[in-house]
Order: sequence, then C-alpha cells, then structure tokens
Amino acid sequence: MRTTPEDFPLEQAIAIAGTLLARLRRERPAVHVLTSPVAMPLSANVLLAAGAEPSLTSRPEVVEEFVIASRALVVNLGMLDADRETAIERAVPAALAHGRPWLLDPVKVDQAGKRRRFALDLLHRQPTVLRANHAEIACLAGAGQEPGALARAFGTVVLATGTVDQVTDGSRGFRIGLGSPLMQRVTAMGCALSALTGGFLAVAGDAFEAAIGAIITFDVAGDMAAGEARGPGSFKIAFLDALYGLSPDELGRRVRGK
Amino acid sequence: MRTTPEDFPLEQAIAIAGTLLARLRRERPAVHVLTSPVAMPLSANVLLAAGAEPSLTSRPEVVEEFVIASRALVVNLGMLDADRETAIERAVPAALAHGRPWLLDPVKVDQAGKRRRFALDLLHRQPTVLRANHAEIACLAGAGQEPGALARAFGTVVLATGTVDQVTDGSRGFRIGLGSPLMQRVTAMGCALSALTGGFLAVAGDAFEAAIGAIITFDVAGDMAAGEARGPGSFKIAFLDALYGLSPDELGRRVRGK
Amino acid sequence: MRTTPEDFPLEQAIAIAGTLLARLRRERPAVHVLTSPVAMPLSANVLLAAGAEPSLTSRPEVVEEFVIASRALVVNLGMLDADRETAIERAVPAALAHGRPWLLDPVKVDQAGKRRRFALDLLHRQPTVLRANHAEIACLAGAGQEPGALARAFGTVVLATGTVDQVTDGSRGFRIGLGSPLMQRVTAMGCALSALTGGFLAVAGDAFEAAIGAIITFDVAGDMAAGEARGPGSFKIAFLDALYGLSPDELGRRVRGK
Repeated sequence: MRTTPEDFPLEQAIAIAGTLLARLRRERPAVHVLTSPVAMPLSANVLLAAGAEPSLTSRPEVVEEFVIASRALVVNLGMLDADRETAIERAVPAALAHGRPWLLDPVKVDQAGKRRRFALDLLHRQPTVLRANHAEIACLAGAGQEPGALARAFGTVVLATGTVDQVTDGSRGFRIGLGSPLMQRVTAMGCALSALTGGFLAVAGDAFEAAIGAIITFDVAGDMAAGEARGPGSFKIAFLDALYGLSPDELGRRVRGK
Repeated sequence: MRTTPEDFPLEQAIAIAGTLLARLRRERPAVHVLTSPVAMPLSANVLLAAGAEPSLTSRPEVVEEFVIASRALVVNLGMLDADRETAIERAVPAALAHGRPWLLDPVKVDQAGKRRRFALDLLHRQPTVLRANHAEIACLAGAGQEPGALARAFGTVVLATGTVDQVTDGSRGFRIGLGSPLMQRVTAMGCALSALTGGFLAVAGDAFEAAIGAIITFDVAGDMAAGEARGPGSFKIAFLDALYGLSPDELGRRVRGK
Repeated sequence: MRTTPEDFPLEQAIAIAGTLLARLRRERPAVHVLTSPVAMPLSANVLLAAGAEPSLTSRPEVVEEFVIASRALVVNLGMLDADRETAIERAVPAALAHGRPWLLDPVKVDQAGKRRRFALDLLHRQPTVLRANHAEIACLAGAGQEPGALARAFGTVVLATGTVDQVTDGSRGFRIGLGSPLMQRVTAMGCALSALTGGFLAVAGDAFEAAIGAIITFDVAGDMAAGEARGPGSFKIAFLDALYGLSPDELGRRVRGK
C-alpha cells in the first residue's frame, strides 16, 4: 500500500483554484455551516468575502430545510453542544439524500472522548472532505496512519493542515507550504478554512479539486495578508480583503514564488 | 389605496438624523438585543460606536428584567433557537407593558416555514418598526404587497432594505440609495442596522423619525467606509470608525451629494 | 480595618508584568474560558495574541476534561444560559480539585437577581481572582465596601476596573490609570481582560502578581492602540497588534510615562 501519494501537478492545481474561485464569485452558492459560536463571524465573513452565501442555524427543526436550500454543508464539531449535535444528526442524512457534498471538521477531537466517538460515527458516513490538523487526524486514524490511509479507509478526501498543508484522496496528493504563523494567532482560522472549502465544494464537480482550490486560495490570501500585517488584528482584516480581491494571476504568482 | 407613499422632505430627514444621533451620544440609552450569535459582536459594536449601551442575554428567566432596564428592545429571528424563542415570548409582552418601543427583524423568514409562522405571530403584536429585506417582506406581506401596505396592515413602520432603502409608515415615505455593495460582504450588517435602529428608537419620540435617523446614519457611515476600504475586512473597521466620529455636517453633505 | 491598601512599587510591578508576559509567550499555556457568545471571538483573540491557547466549550459533559487539560479557568457570567451555568457547576470543582487557578467575572451581576445569587455562591468558593467593574463590586460587596474589604472577606484577589484600574489582595494594592475611553466602545473588552488575566494566572505563581501583569499589559496595549486609532473599529485591531508585539521595554516606558 502506497503511503505517500504522488504529487499533483502544480500548474494544474493553480488553474483549478483560479477556475473554481471565479465560479464561486459568479454563482454565489448558498452554503450551510454548522459551527461553534466563536467561529461563526469569521467563517461567515470568509465565505462572503470569497463570494458564497452562508447560513448558520443549528435549530434541529429547521436545519433540513436549510441544507436542502444550500449547495454544500459544513459540519464543525468545535464547542459541540446538544442542539448542534442533534442538528448534525439530521443535516448529514439530508445532505446525503439530496446529493449535497459535506465536510467534517473534527475540532479538538483529541481532547474529549465523547466528541471522538461522535466524529468516528460521522466518518463512517463518508464525508466528502475531512479537514483537520495532524493531532486530530492521528486521533481518528490511529497511531502511525497517515492522511492517505485515512482517505482510503473512509472514502473521503483529507485536507490536513499544519506547517505544510496537504490534500489527499488516497491516490492523488497535493502539498503547499504557504501559510503564515499569524494564522495560528487568530481564533477559528482553521474553521474558516473548512467553511471556505464548503464554498468550493458547492461549485466543484470533484472533491479533491475543491480541496485544492480552497487551500490554495486560503494560503495565498494568508501570504498576502502576512506581507502587510503588524500583528494578528491587522492580519485578519488584510486576509478578508485579500480573499475578496484576489485575482487568478496573483494566485499563480504567489504559489509559484515559494 | 395609495401604494407609493409621498416623499418625506430630504432636509427635514437630515435634520432629524443629526438631532437623534446627537441625542443618542448624549443619553447613552440601554438597548436590549435578542439576536443570533453570529450577529452579536457586530450589533453590540455598532450600538457602542453610535453611543448606546447594549445588553444581549436570551435567558428566559432574566430577560424581562433586562427589557425593563432598557429603553428599546430588538427582536432578531436569525438562527432562532428554542431559548431565544422563549425569551422573545416573554420580552415582547414586557416591552409592551412598560411602553418600550421594539423592533422586529425577521431574518431569513422566507427560508423556514416554522420561522415564518412565528414572525407572523409577532407581527400581529405590532412591532414599532419592522426591518427586513425585500424577500422577507414579500414572504410576510404576500405576493404583490409593497412595504406601505404592510405598514398599514400591521400599524408598524417598515424599514425595507435593498439597493434602495425605504422607510414607510403607510402614509409618509423616505428613500435613500447610499449603500455600498461591500455591505453585502460583511456578515450580519442587516442585523447591525436593526440594532442601531433600536438605539434610535430609544431616544426618538416617533418611530418613523427613528427609522429615518438610523438608515441615514447607517448608510452615510457605509458610504464613508466604502470610500477608503480595500475589501470587506477594512470596510467593517472603517464603518465602525465612521459611525463613532460622524458629524451632523458630514451627514448632511453625504446625503445631499448623491 | 485598613481600607486603602498600600501602593505596590511601580518598578517591581513593571518587572513582574514583563517577566510574566515573556513566560506566557514561551510556555503557551492552555486556558479554558467559559464565556458569552458575544465575548468569545475577542477573548480568544486576545489570549492568542498574548501567547496562550484558549478552549471555550460549555458542554457540561466534557468541560471537566477541558479544565483538567488547561492551566487556568475563566468563568464569565455574561449572558449566562442554563448550559453554561451547569458547566460552571462542574468546572469550578474540577479546577479546585486539580489545583488550577480560576477567575470569576460577574458581568452585569447588578442587573439580574438570579445572576447575583449565583455569583455569590461562586464567590464563596474563593475564586483566585475576581475581575469586575465598580457597579458589579458594589452589588456583591454591599454598600460602602471597597475592593480591599471584598478581597479579605473572600480570600480572593480583586481586579477592579474603571477610570483607574486597581488590584488588591486586601493588604497589597496597585493602581494604574492608563486606560482609553475607546475601550468602553468595543464590546466585551472587560471580558477580554478577564480572559487575559486567566492567561497570566496560568504562568504565575502568585495571583496578585498575575493580576498586576495582566492589567499592565492590557492597559499598555490599550494606550498604544488609542494613540493610532480613529475610532473603536481601528482601536480593536491596533489593540490586538500591540498585544502581540509589545516588548518589556515599551511596557515600562508607557507605564512610567503617565
């Protein structure tokens, strides 16, 4: 079994990111995001800056209506409370029944046993994309398993973030090391990446391409913001501005330049 | 039945906005806001920047105490959960019993049947102001009914937002087209306008005048912010700064200049 | 009974603040924060900017795991809902049992009778630090009692904020008057100070020193931000940037300069 996936061609990845970002801005897809209160403002603002239209309710009685009216679903387990857990139990089947792609972000799954069991249940329902950091992936995959193995085991695309960000579907793989350390100093940036990936899933035909498009767009905006920020406050502002104004040309230049 | 209300004199509207904004800054009224978690930080910051003192608890057991200690109540249905629904059921009668003006913002009422029924129940209790976009108004008013008809039917002032913003009490009307497209790219800007209108209701004797004062102040701050923003991140920052520093003179200049 | 505590030496306070801030940045301690949704983004961002690692869940079933994995606990009563109240009932004994310092912020305790009773119950469990404004302290301490008396009565360190900020353990006292009026125009700044104090408690051996370090760091960042802000929007951004970049030298200069 191959454990390090082959590299996806860089120029093809750049072209995919540019195409999907343009489509996101043109089509303005609705994306339903089930996330924590601390992550809501930034996740919504990131989707709006990139061109999508977020909705956020976790009310179990209405969540299916919102999922069906959306083109992608984002399921984030940060600060998971009872209401959101119930909403997720209804939202995921609705997404599956109506052919909506959905993303799982198992925030801090390594810090609470109860959350880990719930995340594993959700993994068995095969999220279109799993977005997590390496500690969370290790907690779900078991010791020594790398993202590609997890992708194959659950039939999902894994977007693993860290010093180097990695996308894998178990056979194809893509890596990018453009992040800024300031990203770690703004709360809910990882959650915002998951939300943005939901936006790309809404307009992409292929989950692997959606994850590539999202991570390139996100990291390039972060790289642009880091270039002018004086700290985490101005970083977040510059990041949203960059996401909004980013051109495909700039995107290619930044990815190639590193 | 007249469907397009007569235009309210522009200079009179500008004078009202300047007077009420000055009063808001001087009196610093308490305003209780029942809103969604995604809208809370911006709504609170908009009220604070304009001069009011927000409180936000949705705990049913204490909400009446907070409403009575406030001079206006804002009821926002975005992400409506069970607790907030119960809190609203107690807060609105408390506002009515103690003569506090209250505003209804029926967020995304067009996207959930359950929420629509609740909004209609609330409309029958005659909110002082209804703040909504055109899709939400169409959902509540029925096909073909315009804001003036809704205002007359429910004895409320309607503040309808869109490319052109409109205030009507069913006989008088005011329109302003100063908004910026960037407002659509910042989450909960509409909710923040509703919160600000609550602040103006707290210091105004007349609901139609409060709505005029709020929409002029809001749109002028947006126009100022759009002039210097590079995207939705810097727009929100510049908007809060403008709201805080805005002078009556600047307000008049911006409204007349368009 | 002495009612005005003796002044703590300024140079010693500055040295303590610099040492603790450096330790916070180096050790990056986990801090668990139970707070209101309106306060979450800023509290988390303030902790991250200063160097700590916040977690925020209020789920009663998992809160003990998070408290035990953290080095300090922050208990904030703003917008207190039933879930968070239950979480606090479990988190505080867990902190006490595992020797974690904990801070109580009795937000708006003067505005709801139910909240006051809960805050008094918590005070009897002797929080390591009580952070409150003068109205909240008066509500808890009884008429005419000053912070030093409250500190002695409950065996806690009191960090009382207002035009002048004051730290007292009932015998030692420290005062600083560096705040900016713009702090009052940004929502949840007081809650953010409480969160930051939790970060300092995580790395300090002494609660009085932790409170001094936190208030000096917070006020100096506020002073730096006020110097370049154009209103409350840019103030918050500059505040986070200042907190992130602040050097011990700058800290000393600003405190002495006033």
